[in-house]
Amino acid sequence: MATVEIEFLPQSRFVEADQGADLLQVARASRIDIESSCNGTGTCGKCLVQQTEGEVSPPHPDEIQLISREDLSQGVRLACRQKVSERAAFRVLFGSERKHRILSDGLMPKFELNPKIRKLHVQLDKPSLHDAVDDVSRLERALEIRFSERIPLAILQQLPGLLRAEEFAATVILSGQDIIGLEAGNTADLSYGIAVDIGTTTMVVSLVNLATGDELASSTMINPQKTYGLDVFTRIQHAQNAGGLEELSLKVREAIDALIGDVCLEAAVNREYVYEVAVSGNSTMMHLFLGVDPSSLGRAPYSCGFSLGVTLPARELGITIASFGEVYCLPSVSAFVGADIVAGIISTELLHKDERALFIDIGTNGEIAFSSKGKIFACSCAAGPALEGMNISCGMRAADGAIEKVVINPNVELHTIGNAPAIGLCGSGVIDAVAELLQAGVIASSGRFVTLEPGAKQPWADRLRTESGSPTFILASGTGSNSTIGITQKDVRQVQLAKGAIHSGILVLLRSLGVDLSEIDRVYLAGAFGCHVRMESMARIGLLAEELLDRVTLVGNSSKSGAIVCLLSQVKRAEAMRIVQGVEYVELSCYPDFDRLFARCLAFPNSSAEHTA
Amino acid sequence: MATVEIEFLPQSRFVEADQGADLLQVARASRIDIESSCNGTGTCGKCLVQQTEGEVSPPHPDEIQLISREDLSQGVRLACRQKVSERAAFRVLFGSERKHRILSDGLMPKFELNPKIRKLHVQLDKPSLHDAVDDVSRLERALEIRFSERIPLAILQQLPGLLRAEEFAATVILSGQDIIGLEAGNTADLSYGIAVDIGTTTMVVSLVNLATGDELASSTMINPQKTYGLDVFTRIQHAQNAGGLEELSLKVREAIDALIGDVCLEAAVNREYVYEVAVSGNSTMMHLFLGVDPSSLGRAPYSCGFSLGVTLPARELGITIASFGEVYCLPSVSAFVGADIVAGIISTELLHKDERALFIDIGTNGEIAFSSKGKIFACSCAAGPALEGMNISCGMRAADGAIEKVVINPNVELHTIGNAPAIGLCGSGVIDAVAELLQAGVIASSGRFVTLEPGAKQPWADRLRTESGSPTFILASGTGSNSTIGITQKDVRQVQLAKGAIHSGILVLLRSLGVDLSEIDRVYLAGAFGCHVRMESMARIGLLAEELLDRVTLVGNSSKSGAIVCLLSQVKRAEAMRIVQGVEYVELSCYPDFDRLFARCLAFPNSSAEHTA
Repeated sequence: MATVEIEFLPQSRFVEADQGADLLQVARASRIDIESSCNGTGTCGKCLVQQTEGEVSPPHPDEIQLISREDLSQGVRLACRQKVSERAAFRVLFGSERKHRILSDGLMPKFELNPKIRKLHVQLDKPSLHDAVDDVSRLERALEIRFSERIPLAILQQLPGLLRAEEFAATVILSGQDIIGLEAGNTADLSYGIAVDIGTTTMVVSLVNLATGDELASSTMINPQKTYGLDVFTRIQHAQNAGGLEELSLKVREAIDALIGDVCLEAAVNREYVYEVAVSGNSTMMHLFLGVDPSSLGRAPYSCGFSLGVTLPARELGITIASFGEVYCLPSVSAFVGADIVAGIISTELLHKDERALFIDIGTNGEIAFSSKGKIFACSCAAGPALEGMNISCGMRAADGAIEKVVINPNVELHTIGNAPAIGLCGSGVIDAVAELLQAGVIASSGRFVTLEPGAKQPWADRLRTESGSPTFILASGTGSNSTIGITQKDVRQVQLAKGAIHSGILVLLRSLGVDLSEIDRVYLAGAFGCHVRMESMARIGLLAEELLDRVTLVGNSSKSGAIVCLLSQVKRAEAMRIVQGVEYVELSCYPDFDRLFARCLAFPNSSAEHTA
Repeated sequence: MATVEIEFLPQSRFVEADQGADLLQVARASRIDIESSCNGTGTCGKCLVQQTEGEVSPPHPDEIQLISREDLSQGVRLACRQKVSERAAFRVLFGSERKHRILSDGLMPKFELNPKIRKLHVQLDKPSLHDAVDDVSRLERALEIRFSERIPLAILQQLPGLLRAEEFAATVILSGQDIIGLEAGNTADLSYGIAVDIGTTTMVVSLVNLATGDELASSTMINPQKTYGLDVFTRIQHAQNAGGLEELSLKVREAIDALIGDVCLEAAVNREYVYEVAVSGNSTMMHLFLGVDPSSLGRAPYSCGFSLGVTLPARELGITIASFGEVYCLPSVSAFVGADIVAGIISTELLHKDERALFIDIGTNGEIAFSSKGKIFACSCAAGPALEGMNISCGMRAADGAIEKVVINPNVELHTIGNAPAIGLCGSGVIDAVAELLQAGVIASSGRFVTLEPGAKQPWADRLRTESGSPTFILASGTGSNSTIGITQKDVRQVQLAKGAIHSGILVLLRSLGVDLSEIDRVYLAGAFGCHVRMESMARIGLLAEELLDRVTLVGNSSKSGAIVCLLSQVKRAEAMRIVQGVEYVELSCYPDFDRLFARCLAFPNSSAEHTA
């Protein structure tokens, strides 16, 4: 087979490669370090290279999905999707140069470090004729613990030899009151856990030191299930196909396993010292992760296969940590109020605060929890993906070139992620645009675009056009497939549906309990959403009442924070179970006249501009 | 390859077989039913065939070990050790024709049926919008049980589909409060367990109906570890060799698995409906079964790796029952007071009886337990294998041709197992012979053979000879390698050592507690030993004081009975743990002046004959 020379930059390493070979494989074979969480399956978007010499190939569909248009035009590609054809040079782009914006941090509550996994180095008395008690009981005596009858076979087999080789000392790994592992020598300080948030769109994995409580490293990637549908319902549908459930489950488990590899590499931690993985996510994600048929989540009466917290052997799930390591799945309340919301309630300490608080997590489904005097009520509303920039004519996810901020003052000012030429609008851009259009009087509170008199004087007048028979407000001329970037009447309707769903959800929840908006002490806003959207814009479109704005706390990725809290505190973990059992789920569709309320909530608040218009 | 014709009788089936082929394989390939618990490894001795045509091959060492000389001479062979060479005919000898005598029955106490494994067919409420609780919690609610957090992954995966396919009904398999399995339809009546007694020499497996408590079938075989040594100490030594422990463990697990196949076949029970295996045996056997290094059992201070009862997944031990089935190992007290003794204490209800009782299990080690007012004391004495017919010049195990009964009246009358020509002496024969020699005045209470005057008139006088410089009493002319069968001075010494060890053990135990023999209400005699030895002979050699004879109850294989009791009663199983924690182990070597007491116990009781001699 013919070989050609490939140069890797910045090292300027020259490598002979077979024509037709996979570039990622070529790099790996030559020990050139290229990140790839998905192991070359074209889903993680980490193995970015920029071709600096030779003819750049047309982008692969996976590359179009994962790389911004600007980067594509500059020769950025996925190493795993490049085939060697002729002499070429590639610059390896490292993690810091990746541009996807996934929220991986979250607010952490204060609590005492009391992890379920404990490592103890113990010295036992040596046996004598007067104290010939067996090794297991001797260990129990030293630990002052009585083990369960279901002690692992590996421990029975390991213990006698290990004790006698180590002068009757050993390092013991306990999970609660159960012994799960044994190690020679004193390795008590080497105790790690992993927190996982499986989002429908993105996944976040964090490495946590169980002995100190420190978060050591974090890594994120696009949920590889995305190939099978953007929202939970299409994934539930795919799971009904032959082999579909196994496929979805395997994808997410492999992704978690790869991300664990990433964070352990980054923090220089041997993954054999990782003993527990705490997993949070919405109910569909949790079902798919465990390979449990989610079909009942997708149709009335929307019941889960399981919802209470479960602990499973990591090895049964193909997750390679310590051979006896465990996976803990956080509990969930219902099909729509998942472990991610329970994690949020834990990380915001909603149950403990002496205040009336709302917890709002806006995604394709909006979940809302309300706490009052130690009691929690929750509901879920079908917001749709508009607020995430999906189902919008020029929508895109938060990546380079996405318009994330819009100001009409009265000229149109835009801000894009990475200051790149505008390609489309991400969620925060959509909300900002609609808010500004309302403020400027381009849209009425009904959601309709205004009809301008011919020769209207507004500086933006020429931007309001009719395209394909529908009013459209042009924000920018685009690059690539969107020749212009704008907001259409249909886009505004999508935003109305989303904000109406959430707004009505909040109202029903509060009205069911006889609570007025003014009585709310605090609003916790979870997720990437809250961190990137301007508060004023949220208020302007009526997603959040204006009077609540000064009471908002952004909590970030509270699903991940809650998983970390559960790793580090048995008390908080027990609390998660109590939360689940105590949460009262309010079924919106059962609220009298819900449809009318929802219809009313579709309208935007009156804006000052409209009054004067 | 050349083929020859093989005829199988009694069916008279003619089969074409390749020269050099294994006869057992040939039979199996032609669906001719030949039992083989060990799957052709030459250890179970079940695949007996008798060659009726063609030249009989010289016996293989395994055949010499497992088949009596008489049978060997009549062409009986193991099918698994025969290679096809020329035209031949073989008669398949079925189970009933096997001649090994292994005690498989034991005394059973009365108790309420309350097995740890329960199968319940439950009907759940169907989910509705007003009751959308998850499937697992729904099942918990129907069963009025809260499952452990460690619910098996397979159940999470199976439950949603099974419930929806079966109108929300299911058969649930519970182990205590834990759910371990699910089955479609109503299979609640199909619930089976296996009780196993792993003896150093023989193994017994019983199939038990957990729903009714009935014992359905039982099967036995020689412990295949026997190849690696007859007693526990040589096996402990073998376990120190590279791969030795794994080898010993695998052998016994495979044997149990094969025996389970036998009993399930016999009772026409699908082994997927077997959910639990309860295993009893001495401490070394339990360690080897689980693959736990037994070396600490073989040297001071004689401590166990484990002793409390443990429950393990059957599949981890290579035991093929229900995929989620469990193996329960009965608890033991110490290195020498094993689970077999705990099982005996349970099956004799020693703890509950309002009497002072001795429990004696005589084997290579003699174990003695004494109960008084709910408290149990135990000791172990190194009897050696003489009472089992081992380490005796013409000793053999209980099989066809073994002298099991001796009467000198004054002529010598012998009885052999199977009424076959005498080949040697089994344990009961040895004891009988020594007892009769004492009674007849051939042996003095010191154990020495008498010296006869020349021309002595006793009818047996010509049987007392000097062979290889040592006095020997000839019982019979033998067949095969033993040209004569007799008892030598050394044999008598071995018996003295054994009975001295047990006698002194009983005395120390009673003296430690200030109890006199006359205060003993009952003596439970366990094992094959008690069932085959004449009580009077035991008394005559001083193994058991004469005054106790009328208080003896033979309890048979109480190790197996105890395992069955543990399968059927959670109450009794909990009791086993209490027994273990309550038993006080009396270390004989710590008793003051034990050596002198032991020396005194070597002497036989004075016999009437000796007084008149």
